[in-house]
Amino acid sequence: MTEQREGEIALPFDPGTGSDAAIVFIGRVHSAWRERADCPKNMVAARESGQRASLKVDEAYRPGLIGLERASHAIVLTWLDRSARNLIVQKPRHAGAPSGVFALRSPVRPNPVGLHICRILSVDHEQGVVELEAIDVLDKTPLVDIKPYFASTDSIPDAVRTDREATA
Amino acid sequence: MTEQREGEIALPFDPGTGSDAAIVFIGRVHSAWRERADCPKNMVAARESGQRASLKVDEAYRPGLIGLERASHAIVLTWLDRSARNLIVQKPRHAGAPSGVFALRSPVRPNPVGLHICRILSVDHEQGVVELEAIDVLDKTPLVDIKPYFASTDSIPDAVRTDREATA
Repeated sequence: MTEQREGEIALPFDPGTGSDAAIVFIGRVHSAWRERADCPKNMVAARESGQRASLKVDEAYRPGLIGLERASHAIVLTWLDRSARNLIVQKPRHAGAPSGVFALRSPVRPNPVGLHICRILSVDHEQGVVELEAIDVLDKTPLVDIKPYFASTDSIPDAVRTDREATA
Repeated sequence: MTEQREGEIALPFDPGTGSDAAIVFIGRVHSAWRERADCPKNMVAARESGQRASLKVDEAYRPGLIGLERASHAIVLTWLDRSARNLIVQKPRHAGAPSGVFALRSPVRPNPVGLHICRILSVDHEQGVVELEAIDVLDKTPLVDIKPYFASTDSIPDAVRTDREATA
């Protein structure tokens, strides 16, 4: 559970107590960010920080890295285990109006899966280490999945956020 | 567990029996794809099919959709509940060599979280329905998360897959 700001709405239950499916952690993220206050709020800020990061994959899962070195970028999925899961409407600091969690990239969400598009610098198959240009999560955040990024399906340069009512 | 092809490697355990964290399903995907053989293999093929799709969000989570209509595209995370989780090295049909699961977008993976970048056509807040241009998962697949797509952090048009050994 987390502190509520004016206009925010909490669920009448804690999604953290439910269980429709089980996640296994495949490793951990290592980053320069030890405290929430220091952690970049998004990947643009993380890239601008100049701080590298790495993924350490647990031994059993290391054969899964074979071929990843051919990809320039990875989609990294993490488990944001220090985030509450019960705020369904949130008011980010400096935002004018409250917004639904599915319209935000807030770490507080029913399933706190973090998504980070990262440039791959190197892959050490024996040590299970994937070096990244940058990442926007706290040190020791659990790792859920790594996927190769495909520009053909994943890159939408003209995606926008607009007021549809105003432009319709 | 799933049938193994030559060169494929299974984990010595089934990740589906582990549990480091719990997922709750927030709704379901509705698509035209009822059988695995019909389902497009990626979002490019799904878009080319001309078949629309929708997300049906459970009632408790519907306030989370407020503001999503401002986004042109969403990142949809699903739980690929009909996929095995134990194949760490896989040989896709028509692929020359086996590859690690983290270098593939195969639905068979330790945590079978599907990731789909979809154009949003409309959001019905009362019914909890998000209409999408297309999606590449089977009908009734559980929904894990919806995130707004930001071109600034998520679009990498020049991401490539190459043989790093050859180009280094």
